[in-house]
Amino acid sequence: MDLLGDWWTPLVLREAFYGVRRFDAFQQSLGIARNTLAERLRRLVEEGLLEKVAYQSEPVRYDYVLTPMGRDFYGVLMAMNAWGDRWLAGDEGAPVVFRHERCGRDDVRADVVCSGCGEALNPEDTRPRLGPGYPERLAELPLVRERFAS
Amino acid sequence: MDLLGDWWTPLVLREAFYGVRRFDAFQQSLGIARNTLAERLRRLVEEGLLEKVAYQSEPVRYDYVLTPMGRDFYGVLMAMNAWGDRWLAGDEGAPVVFRHERCGRDDVRADVVCSGCGEALNPEDTRPRLGPGYPERLAELPLVRERFAS
Repeated sequence: MDLLGDWWTPLVLREAFYGVRRFDAFQQSLGIARNTLAERLRRLVEEGLLEKVAYQSEPVRYDYVLTPMGRDFYGVLMAMNAWGDRWLAGDEGAPVVFRHERCGRDDVRADVVCSGCGEALNPEDTRPRLGPGYPERLAELPLVRERFAS
Repeated sequence: MDLLGDWWTPLVLREAFYGVRRFDAFQQSLGIARNTLAERLRRLVEEGLLEKVAYQSEPVRYDYVLTPMGRDFYGVLMAMNAWGDRWLAGDEGAPVVFRHERCGRDDVRADVVCSGCGEALNPEDTRPRLGPGYPERLAELPLVRERFAS
């Protein structure tokens, strides 16, 4: 069993980044049940990560294309990929490697860093605090007050 | 409906980073059904992200504690959080903000960057290639050859 095996959402998105657009192509790549795939695609469209673009009429058929919000999920997938390579790859190494064409390097990986200083973000030195958008009614709960006590 | 609403795995991990260790505390924080939570915790232990540490005997009771592999998932969660703040936060702003104690800045976010050059990794300028660990029997499939053609 694969940890990401029931995370169909990121897997569907990964296929979209590989250029997959058609229902049947997603289905073939992922080996996912058609009804599960239909549900995942429907939800990704509803949430705004994919959009349906008609590529024929009578009968109408759709491509599933990444929206800007969906394209912006790339960093999360790359961070997930780097983590998987560190912990789940066998002795042979990573199943997929990446070339960063902008800098010209092969075999790069994603690093997750602080937007302020550019150093790696670790749980030891990063402290969560209540933000302006935290729901007021929840902010009063003892569980929440305790969690974000500073 | 929340996009991450059925991704119990990262939500359980996020609670663990907040210091949650007990079954009942996970259950209270997440408002998740007990059997779903038990299944998620069991799987995270099986996959190596959490470990069970007995905190009492007769009857034996366990804490669920992040392993090094689980702690290393932090970057993925932070990248996911930054994405959520960009696309899902309301006008009020982020529900949770972060202070990076190492650099002393408030309101930092996670950036996902190239390990080679430190610049943001975008799908437009990052090319996937077959890695050494790609299963040989799959590497021959037309679908795969086409995907990784360079």
